[in-house]
Amino acid sequence: MERPRHQGMAKNTYMRWRLPLVCLLWEVAMIILFGVFVRFSPEADAHWEEEKQKMNVTSDIENDFYFRYPSFQDVHVMIFVGFGFIMMFLKRYGFGAVGFNFLLAAFGIQWALLMQGWFHSFKSGKILIGVENLINADFCVGSACIAFGAILGKTSPIQLLVMTLFQVTLFAVNEYILLNLLHVKDAGGSMTIHIFGAYFGLTVTRILYRPNLEQSKDKQGSVYHSDLFAMIGTLYLWIYWPSFNSAISEHGDAQHRAAINTYCSLAACVLTTVAFSSMLQKKGKLDMVHIQNATLAGGVAVGTSAEMMLTPYGSLIVGFISGIVSTVGYVYLTPFLESRLHIQDTCGIHNLHALPGLIGGIVGAITAAAATEDVYGKEGIIKAFDFTGPYQTRTPSVQGGFQAAGIVVSVLIAVAGGSLVGAILKLPVWGDPAAENCFEDDVYWEV
Amino acid sequence: MERPRHQGMAKNTYMRWRLPLVCLLWEVAMIILFGVFVRFSPEADAHWEEEKQKMNVTSDIENDFYFRYPSFQDVHVMIFVGFGFIMMFLKRYGFGAVGFNFLLAAFGIQWALLMQGWFHSFKSGKILIGVENLINADFCVGSACIAFGAILGKTSPIQLLVMTLFQVTLFAVNEYILLNLLHVKDAGGSMTIHIFGAYFGLTVTRILYRPNLEQSKDKQGSVYHSDLFAMIGTLYLWIYWPSFNSAISEHGDAQHRAAINTYCSLAACVLTTVAFSSMLQKKGKLDMVHIQNATLAGGVAVGTSAEMMLTPYGSLIVGFISGIVSTVGYVYLTPFLESRLHIQDTCGIHNLHALPGLIGGIVGAITAAAATEDVYGKEGIIKAFDFTGPYQTRTPSVQGGFQAAGIVVSVLIAVAGGSLVGAILKLPVWGDPAAENCFEDDVYWEV
Amino acid sequence: MERPRHQGMAKNTYMRWRLPLVCLLWEVAMIILFGVFVRFSPEADAHWEEEKQKMNVTSDIENDFYFRYPSFQDVHVMIFVGFGFIMMFLKRYGFGAVGFNFLLAAFGIQWALLMQGWFHSFKSGKILIGVENLINADFCVGSACIAFGAILGKTSPIQLLVMTLFQVTLFAVNEYILLNLLHVKDAGGSMTIHIFGAYFGLTVTRILYRPNLEQSKDKQGSVYHSDLFAMIGTLYLWIYWPSFNSAISEHGDAQHRAAINTYCSLAACVLTTVAFSSMLQKKGKLDMVHIQNATLAGGVAVGTSAEMMLTPYGSLIVGFISGIVSTVGYVYLTPFLESRLHIQDTCGIHNLHALPGLIGGIVGAITAAAATEDVYGKEGIIKAFDFTGPYQTRTPSVQGGFQAAGIVVSVLIAVAGGSLVGAILKLPVWGDPAAENCFEDDVYWEV
Repeated sequence: MERPRHQGMAKNTYMRWRLPLVCLLWEVAMIILFGVFVRFSPEADAHWEEEKQKMNVTSDIENDFYFRYPSFQDVHVMIFVGFGFIMMFLKRYGFGAVGFNFLLAAFGIQWALLMQGWFHSFKSGKILIGVENLINADFCVGSACIAFGAILGKTSPIQLLVMTLFQVTLFAVNEYILLNLLHVKDAGGSMTIHIFGAYFGLTVTRILYRPNLEQSKDKQGSVYHSDLFAMIGTLYLWIYWPSFNSAISEHGDAQHRAAINTYCSLAACVLTTVAFSSMLQKKGKLDMVHIQNATLAGGVAVGTSAEMMLTPYGSLIVGFISGIVSTVGYVYLTPFLESRLHIQDTCGIHNLHALPGLIGGIVGAITAAAATEDVYGKEGIIKAFDFTGPYQTRTPSVQGGFQAAGIVVSVLIAVAGGSLVGAILKLPVWGDPAAENCFEDDVYWEV
Repeated sequence: MERPRHQGMAKNTYMRWRLPLVCLLWEVAMIILFGVFVRFSPEADAHWEEEKQKMNVTSDIENDFYFRYPSFQDVHVMIFVGFGFIMMFLKRYGFGAVGFNFLLAAFGIQWALLMQGWFHSFKSGKILIGVENLINADFCVGSACIAFGAILGKTSPIQLLVMTLFQVTLFAVNEYILLNLLHVKDAGGSMTIHIFGAYFGLTVTRILYRPNLEQSKDKQGSVYHSDLFAMIGTLYLWIYWPSFNSAISEHGDAQHRAAINTYCSLAACVLTTVAFSSMLQKKGKLDMVHIQNATLAGGVAVGTSAEMMLTPYGSLIVGFISGIVSTVGYVYLTPFLESRLHIQDTCGIHNLHALPGLIGGIVGAITAAAATEDVYGKEGIIKAFDFTGPYQTRTPSVQGGFQAAGIVVSVLIAVAGGSLVGAILKLPVWGDPAAENCFEDDVYWEV
Repeated sequence: MERPRHQGMAKNTYMRWRLPLVCLLWEVAMIILFGVFVRFSPEADAHWEEEKQKMNVTSDIENDFYFRYPSFQDVHVMIFVGFGFIMMFLKRYGFGAVGFNFLLAAFGIQWALLMQGWFHSFKSGKILIGVENLINADFCVGSACIAFGAILGKTSPIQLLVMTLFQVTLFAVNEYILLNLLHVKDAGGSMTIHIFGAYFGLTVTRILYRPNLEQSKDKQGSVYHSDLFAMIGTLYLWIYWPSFNSAISEHGDAQHRAAINTYCSLAACVLTTVAFSSMLQKKGKLDMVHIQNATLAGGVAVGTSAEMMLTPYGSLIVGFISGIVSTVGYVYLTPFLESRLHIQDTCGIHNLHALPGLIGGIVGAITAAAATEDVYGKEGIIKAFDFTGPYQTRTPSVQGGFQAAGIVVSVLIAVAGGSLVGAILKLPVWGDPAAENCFEDDVYWEV
């Protein structure tokens, strides 16, 4: 049953005390910090009846819960089923894909509630949480799931927890800079989630470069059934992406519009992915890797602009382009990155998150800069870009500039942070597998 | 790896230029048409604040998005996961089932937004789309997914795209005739989706009759795991069918009632399916084919009447009957259709969609004809059947007659349209597989 | 294909007439009883327009449908996909797991609508049903799915239907005693669903004790793919549990709060499950059984208190403890129960439902007893515990005592009822499989 080669000669992958210690200590830390800081927002607190009077609303339906909870649940499915299953394509790493994703996300959402809470929901010494915080925590963890895709199969669960701890922290810092200091719009997270998560993960995997990874090359592929399991992940990501991009938009037209734009972009993306998957293969056959991944690029690429007046045909154009870019990336860029730049990107997150994320940031900047009162209405443009308070004199073209700055900041913080975290993860204490045991469940799982 | 028999002797299944060309050209056409015609509905447009004043509503929660978006997402899951996975029962056609369903649906929803838009949401030269249009586009594509079930494993992806193009067009015409000219109610689409989709698909497969299909008989069955994957599709269809039948009903009681009726009908249907599956098998064992399919007949069969005052026990009766009819169909009718009428119906859509669809149309006609002011209330009956404007003098019994006419029209247009499209698909230019390569993924997929 | 040992020497597992007879007769009974008793609630009835005036609401969005339908659909997924797939871990019992769960749940929800209806929604001779009744019916059936987990693989479908009939009946009685006579709060069902369902099922499996079960020991394990299918069930249960615990809470803050508390508890539970799974295994490897099950204990354990002011850190503590208790239970208690007490618990429901259910009941009692006007507000505390009418003088500490009494009552009725039903199921007429044929699909299924 236990094949000797899995013990690894130079590597100690024994988790028995290290992993429990990290899990238990960190969870105790969460309890203490939650005890000190986290309370319910007024809409989730038993004083809601009094709050209603203050807000001058008469119906419980005005509670933010009813505006956002269905989208929250869709996002929740994306994080735990979507990311968990899309990474199941590896023939011998199904437990690790879904199980470690589960672990890092369950830890990450707690830490994200704290980190994002301190930055955004801190009132008189307490973090007040409601359904929007849950969505934001899921979003933040989404960026960790993306980074996990780059190092899938090559790390220990402790490394993943350590990476998540740092990544969530840096995510919150980057998000604060973008949303609060630059006053950038990014409701679907092209920049904060996808660019940040992808470049962070790519930097980490670069630093963890394994020169002998071809020793486990036989396990790095898929089998028929593992590809079908992965399609469960793909489809749930694809189906619920309109919820993802609209989940934290303003009530009313913005949520409505974000869902429509995302729906359109994703639909177009499927067709160009199929076209290029067939075209770039000598025999003209479709490649499941592309169908599983590049079909989702359209969702990433409207992450910033979906809530804006991108319009349905604008969304189709964005989806059209991103499907092509992503598929071409899988065919040509991934091998190049691995052989020339030593970036071993297991899931190809560069093609699914980095490139479409850049497209998304740019499209967002252009869409913002092109906004006019004619298209948005006088009130509409103020509401859409929150041109209020200190920003009431900001113009759309200036906004476009800040949006572009957001891209640059996200890349920089991701690469700097990824370098730091990669260096930490390289320490020989975390129990990562030997090269010949990568992509193999029975290093960390009873199989 | 590449077995020579897959090349097919007389058949050229090489997709490399044909498939990309179709996908890219059609997507460009979509972009142009969307650019000319498609804009946001007022509830998704940045002018919503002004719209709210016009509508005299004060809260964003009155936006149609909040009435329909959760149901939309359920329907979206049904189309892409439900139909995609239920067709995965074939042992060697999992990629084709889920992948081609994905492709045709992604194209179809775009074309449906246009076609249905021209008929139903056209205002001053523009199609104005909101969440209800997304649901209707998914519905329309549902009928293409149904037709796909009849020809599953026997066609090339180009044929599926061509079929979808025509079927969506004809769907919109038929729907216009039923809903606008006959003023028929069909919120869950027993007629417009199921009867139309099923008879269309059955006609197409009749025309594409393959006399030598027994050459791939060994691949036309299931294996243990493919049956479990198929159950994912079944269960999501079953679970979300109440959302399907209520998604576009009137706000309030109609949506509420449609969900309850569908829930009841589906529950009853499971019991009669199990009963007849066991009874019609010599050893009394249950057949997965029936559990995967006939359990859903109850949802189809209340598609027209679910939003009416069918009542919970009425729904149980409909579910009871349709489970029996569908299971008996699988056991006796499918073999008969194949051997005598040369209708090769891979998924048995005749039993799951055609027959229960007919039941659904008839039950709808009877329920409408039996409506009384006593049961609906004076205001209620006008609202339920939209007896306003030119229809304010229509009586329930007349309505019942028009409902029945809707069945006939749907069958006729489906058969006529299916004949035309079948003839087109028979042209030897689409790259369909040879008989011995049917039901086999590696004709069109890298396996 | 048909191996002779499956015929069983002493056992007649032939279902051909018995199973259809039970299904058809019972469904006819449902139709008759629904015909006599079940009608639409005013919010689902065509007289809703008049009802709106009575309720003095102007918008359709005030219909209870919009407050609860998204949660209902999540719960529906949990019952049919969640329970169906989590039981799919057995290598040769996938059809039985998902198929029999489907059957018993589809029957159970109908009978539950009647039983719960008579107790809770009975007005002038009719049971008036709306979306809340559908949720409650799903909840009730949830307890039958739990009990199914204990006897999984060892019973015939008829036995499951008989068990469901009795269990739903007793569930409704127990629920009536708790909610109406003791005036206990239990929105997420720690007591009514989990304690009741688990102890009922454990008693049944004790009475059905099979001394020779080791004859099918080889089939009682999992294989790689069956574990991945089971993770689909686990993740959907985990993701949607916040909807489960909030689905029937009061509109507004209570639903909002219940979702947040459950989200927190579940997140903490994952970390302690991973910690103890690794710690209790000699090689420090993770065990899929724990990840599939114990990660859910946090949802069970806040079932009573989630809608109360448990607070996020309180939820983390509960999740922390329940993950440990559940994992330890799998490692030490399940073997003990089997060898010493002759309780053969296929899925380990004692660890996932009984123990966390007890924790849930106790935490609920404590949280209720600790309620203060300071934390809830004057109006809030009355609303949270429904201290109105005959209960307007009840104090939180008295409420805590009644909550504790609810635990005892649930255990007693479960054990008494389970004994009775176990004795009935022991009659040699139900067609259960011989010991050597347990955990094997091809006894009751065409494979």
